[in-house]
Amino acid sequence: MALPYNRLNFITLCVTDLARARAYYEALGWVPENVTDTIAFYRMDGQYFALFTLEGLSEETGLDVAALRTGAMTLAQNYHTEADVEAAFNRAVACGAKPVRAPFKTGWGGYSCYVADPDGHLWEFAHNPFSPLDAEGRLA
Amino acid sequence: MALPYNRLNFITLCVTDLARARAYYEALGWVPENVTDTIAFYRMDGQYFALFTLEGLSEETGLDVAALRTGAMTLAQNYHTEADVEAAFNRAVACGAKPVRAPFKTGWGGYSCYVADPDGHLWEFAHNPFSPLDAEGRLA
Repeated sequence: MALPYNRLNFITLCVTDLARARAYYEALGWVPENVTDTIAFYRMDGQYFALFTLEGLSEETGLDVAALRTGAMTLAQNYHTEADVEAAFNRAVACGAKPVRAPFKTGWGGYSCYVADPDGHLWEFAHNPFSPLDAEGRLA
Repeated sequence: MALPYNRLNFITLCVTDLARARAYYEALGWVPENVTDTIAFYRMDGQYFALFTLEGLSEETGLDVAALRTGAMTLAQNYHTEADVEAAFNRAVACGAKPVRAPFKTGWGGYSCYVADPDGHLWEFAHNPFSPLDAEGRLA
């Protein structure tokens, strides 16, 4: 069940005005698959591109909006189990990441956590029981 | 030869200290494929993850380092031809992107350009004659 580390499941840009951002990306040809008041998901090949409000990321991570600069974008790796998420979090912290939010049960039924790399870029490690991964760790 | 729009070829984080950033990511298990003084590339499945100095991105785009905040990360789409790069640039600007650097011949033999989305996130559209794409626009 070990997944390769060299993968990303979500690439998420954080935006000040979701309607404005959606209008731009959808004019370019991106087709939303799922949209809420705070986030829009666009399917790629085994990945998702997402637009997320700065307020949403602030609430999710506990970081002030004003602190979200290089952090106003997240890179996410999904894992098979909650234990795998905890292991990924601990491994990143052991490698020098700053813990931002320890593993927690999310409002959408998953399990997630956030760390910041040495430059403040946010990484999320998550388990989503509703979104299985293939053997290579791609969203199925 | 039309490529799907919903894809990313490179996800690049910009960093203040490339050695420090490399030490962190390589401790995590990322294996560099190609490294210079300013950039390190890590292969994923049909994509690359990269770490790039802020000074390097500043030189590449003409933006001041101080202006690189949400822009301190780039999302790149590669195309089959230089004409396709120009079309992608024009299309993005027509959709409301801010032109950052008009299409130009790069030092490495390719053809590239940069735009900023409404929140300042940088996108690169590029043609790399040495790095072919498959029919779906993935790095081959």
